[in-house]
Amino acid sequence: MRGSRPVAVFDSGVGGLTVLKAIRARLPREDLVYFGDTAHLPYGTKSPRTVRALTMTHLEFLAARGIKCAVIACNTASAVALNMLKRRLRVPVVGVIEPGIRAALARTRSGRVGVLGTATTISSGQYQLRLRQLAPGIRVTAQACPLFVPIIEEGWARHAIADTVAREYVAPLLRARVDTVILGCTHYPLLKPVLRRVLGKKVALVDSAEEVKVETERLLLERGLARPARGRRAGRTMFFLTDTGGSFKRIASRFLGSPPRDLVEVRLKVSARDRVRGGAA
Amino acid sequence: MRGSRPVAVFDSGVGGLTVLKAIRARLPREDLVYFGDTAHLPYGTKSPRTVRALTMTHLEFLAARGIKCAVIACNTASAVALNMLKRRLRVPVVGVIEPGIRAALARTRSGRVGVLGTATTISSGQYQLRLRQLAPGIRVTAQACPLFVPIIEEGWARHAIADTVAREYVAPLLRARVDTVILGCTHYPLLKPVLRRVLGKKVALVDSAEEVKVETERLLLERGLARPARGRRAGRTMFFLTDTGGSFKRIASRFLGSPPRDLVEVRLKVSARDRVRGGAA
Repeated sequence: MRGSRPVAVFDSGVGGLTVLKAIRARLPREDLVYFGDTAHLPYGTKSPRTVRALTMTHLEFLAARGIKCAVIACNTASAVALNMLKRRLRVPVVGVIEPGIRAALARTRSGRVGVLGTATTISSGQYQLRLRQLAPGIRVTAQACPLFVPIIEEGWARHAIADTVAREYVAPLLRARVDTVILGCTHYPLLKPVLRRVLGKKVALVDSAEEVKVETERLLLERGLARPARGRRAGRTMFFLTDTGGSFKRIASRFLGSPPRDLVEVRLKVSARDRVRGGAA
Repeated sequence: MRGSRPVAVFDSGVGGLTVLKAIRARLPREDLVYFGDTAHLPYGTKSPRTVRALTMTHLEFLAARGIKCAVIACNTASAVALNMLKRRLRVPVVGVIEPGIRAALARTRSGRVGVLGTATTISSGQYQLRLRQLAPGIRVTAQACPLFVPIIEEGWARHAIADTVAREYVAPLLRARVDTVILGCTHYPLLKPVLRRVLGKKVALVDSAEEVKVETERLLLERGLARPARGRRAGRTMFFLTDTGGSFKRIASRFLGSPPRDLVEVRLKVSARDRVRGGAA
């Protein structure tokens, strides 16, 4: 029964927990597996090729265990690996970028949209490209915010430092007078109060986690994959991590509101080939 | 001829370039190979087991190519993997922690020493342990500074944000009235002006890169491994990276003062075993 398999939520680390939490609230009967590539985070500073290789390896691992749908909660992986995953995996794949873009286009009145994300997400140009494809007249202001993730993981989302850094990053968006801002990284919803302050009340914030849960529900219903309503058992959540020894548990408690249970470590085999790919740069 | 082989400088990313630069200035005739594990950085948030596995893999790769000495420029790798490397590699290994500690003990008058480092370095307890072993009466105040690396990589070392964050991190050191502070991360020398401001002029800063170059020179001379003075050819530097696509070149220019040449990408094979190491946490 494919419908009884779990929904997989994949992320480079803890950020995807905002998506997991949203899906769990919306689809409480579904079993979920969360995969956090904590041994390799962050993805936001790596090259597209490395992000694609890591993402493919981990999704193949999940697919081999049996899942009915894969949610790529990581914006960076969605930006550079989604098309490849859709081609190669046999289960439906949901990214975080398209749902965020559709929500932004539904909300903007001025046609001036801002995007905040990691360095790799922004430089991939995926948000900018898809926004312009779907709404040719749109004006997009995209800003990489490499300090947001460490600030959140440090627990400083309410510290004055978060305000100072956020003011720096949103300055180009304010100058462009955007009326809608996509939070293009799953960590950023934890900075919503700060961003509301520095952007002003009139700017709408699009939280991808909220949009993705709707997209996931729609997809499960459309394909007949939703878990049947028989019985009232709540779904279980299992966590696969490539490194359980780091700060995942502490930071995950901040995201989920309580410490995660059922953590399993996935052992990775890493080997350097001694044939190097050549060429001076 | 072992003496003609290059000296390897290993780091998780770009931070070790401060060490490379110091060694190149002190030992201009030596050939150097720099290995930056840019596909896996940062090490400072990973578990000791993961850091050990990555470090061992990359040092074996370098040893197989032929090196005469390995400098572990990464504080995190020095903290958790140095003993293993010294046991398993057939070439002498220099870490960054011991030279920094010896310099701090030579400088402190009050016996109150501060250590700044990444989360993994500080929680490994290696600095605290070795300081107390070498100077039993010492008082150590150690502080993890997870925002320093992203601030430096963002190019904000001279921004007011760096001051605000630094004030937050050094507060416990000021309360403990330390007179000497070890910069326990190879990135931190780029924050020296900020740290001088927030710590005050009377506090001595110990820059491991400076200490490590002296230690490396001493070791090469002692073991007869220094390159002979015949001819005047300047040594060459080659760069191995596990990910050349990221921001290494841009950030490395900031560290070295000019863009690095002779970059070679090392291809890594990463595979997830489908036998997971079990146990709920």
